[in-house]
Amino acid sequence: MPYVNIRITKEGTTAEQKARLIEGVTNLLKDILGKNPQTTFVIIDEVETDNWGIGGETVTARRQKR
Amino acid sequence: MPYVNIRITKEGTTAEQKARLIEGVTNLLKDILGKNPQTTFVIIDEVETDNWGIGGETVTARRQKR
Amino acid sequence: MPYVNIRITKEGTTAEQKARLIEGVTNLLKDILGKNPQTTFVIIDEVETDNWGIGGETVTARRQKR
Amino acid sequence: MPYVNIRITKEGTTAEQKARLIEGVTNLLKDILGKNPQTTFVIIDEVETDNWGIGGETVTARRQKR
Amino acid sequence: MPYVNIRITKEGTTAEQKARLIEGVTNLLKDILGKNPQTTFVIIDEVETDNWGIGGETVTARRQKR
Amino acid sequence: MPYVNIRITKEGTTAEQKARLIEGVTNLLKDILGKNPQTTFVIIDEVETDNWGIGGETVTARRQKR
Repeated sequence: MPYVNIRITKEGTTAEQKARLIEGVTNLLKDILGKNPQTTFVIIDEVETDNWGIGGETVTARRQKR
Repeated sequence: MPYVNIRITKEGTTAEQKARLIEGVTNLLKDILGKNPQTTFVIIDEVETDNWGIGGETVTARRQKR
Repeated sequence: MPYVNIRITKEGTTAEQKARLIEGVTNLLKDILGKNPQTTFVIIDEVETDNWGIGGETVTARRQKR
Repeated sequence: MPYVNIRITKEGTTAEQKARLIEGVTNLLKDILGKNPQTTFVIIDEVETDNWGIGGETVTARRQKR
Repeated sequence: MPYVNIRITKEGTTAEQKARLIEGVTNLLKDILGKNPQTTFVIIDEVETDNWGIGGETVTARRQKR
Repeated sequence: MPYVNIRITKEGTTAEQKARLIEGVTNLLKDILGKNPQTTFVIIDEVETDNWGIGGETVTARRQKR
């Protein structure tokens, strides 16, 4: 009965991409650890780029430099 | 000083229901473990059904089948 | 299909207390929100007092002052 | 490669304050533990006051009493 | 720069299985969302069966019934 | 009433370093956002290097290459 939390920046991920991610992670847990998909939760959190920092700065600031 | 995080799908939970949930969980921690309510945090996250997977598919897809 | 994470300091909570907490929280989610217990997860994390801070100091330091 | 998650109530924190928080926490991890900023993540979650409980009641209710 | 947290019960998962899980999830995020593996974190938490509840009871109790 | 969770690899961080980290983060939240230290929680999770992945491999594997 695994619980998986995926956190990514909120930058236009589609419902179809999320569905593929959920299916893929659930299959990995079944294939590698034998976990039952019916009790596997996958939750995706989409985080604003102002709220995500890496290298001491926000992703918003980092994107503007490129 | 417990920290409790409750994650549910975003499907119309009312402010009154959230308040009851917070009160109930805080009381449980006081009654069972003797924890002080003044330093008990309860945070409720409401997650879009596109972002929650179970059984390898999104809750959105699952709801449509029923 | 709620997911609940309860974080408490590691200070001798018994298996029986944990079982009561899990049962109590699951019942609250059923009674207040109509959630199905069979897909309700409750995970308890016990955290060393050296690793938990409040008021700018560790719980270990705080306990010693009392 | 630390991961830091900061959860605060959603009450008007500015992008500039978030940027300062991200910079400050990243510097602390470099100064105290020698962690590389390039692989230090800081994620800020802003939570509605209806969804945050302390003392058995929501922050919304608590603010109204003051 | 995704962050993934996988929580499973502590029941003998090997280092090799964990390595495969980390590789698999990282590849999924690259293939489906184009995420850079060098800034993809995957953290696995193994939780004691006394501390994990489903259906209102601990996994320990559930395993004993089978 | 902020909640901060710091996750680092388990590689010999001392109690004194953890105490400094807790004090530093609590002060940042007070200085930048005006948050009350008495209701600021900081929890440090130390994660085994077998359980932390970056770049598609475990930190254990990565450390061995250096």
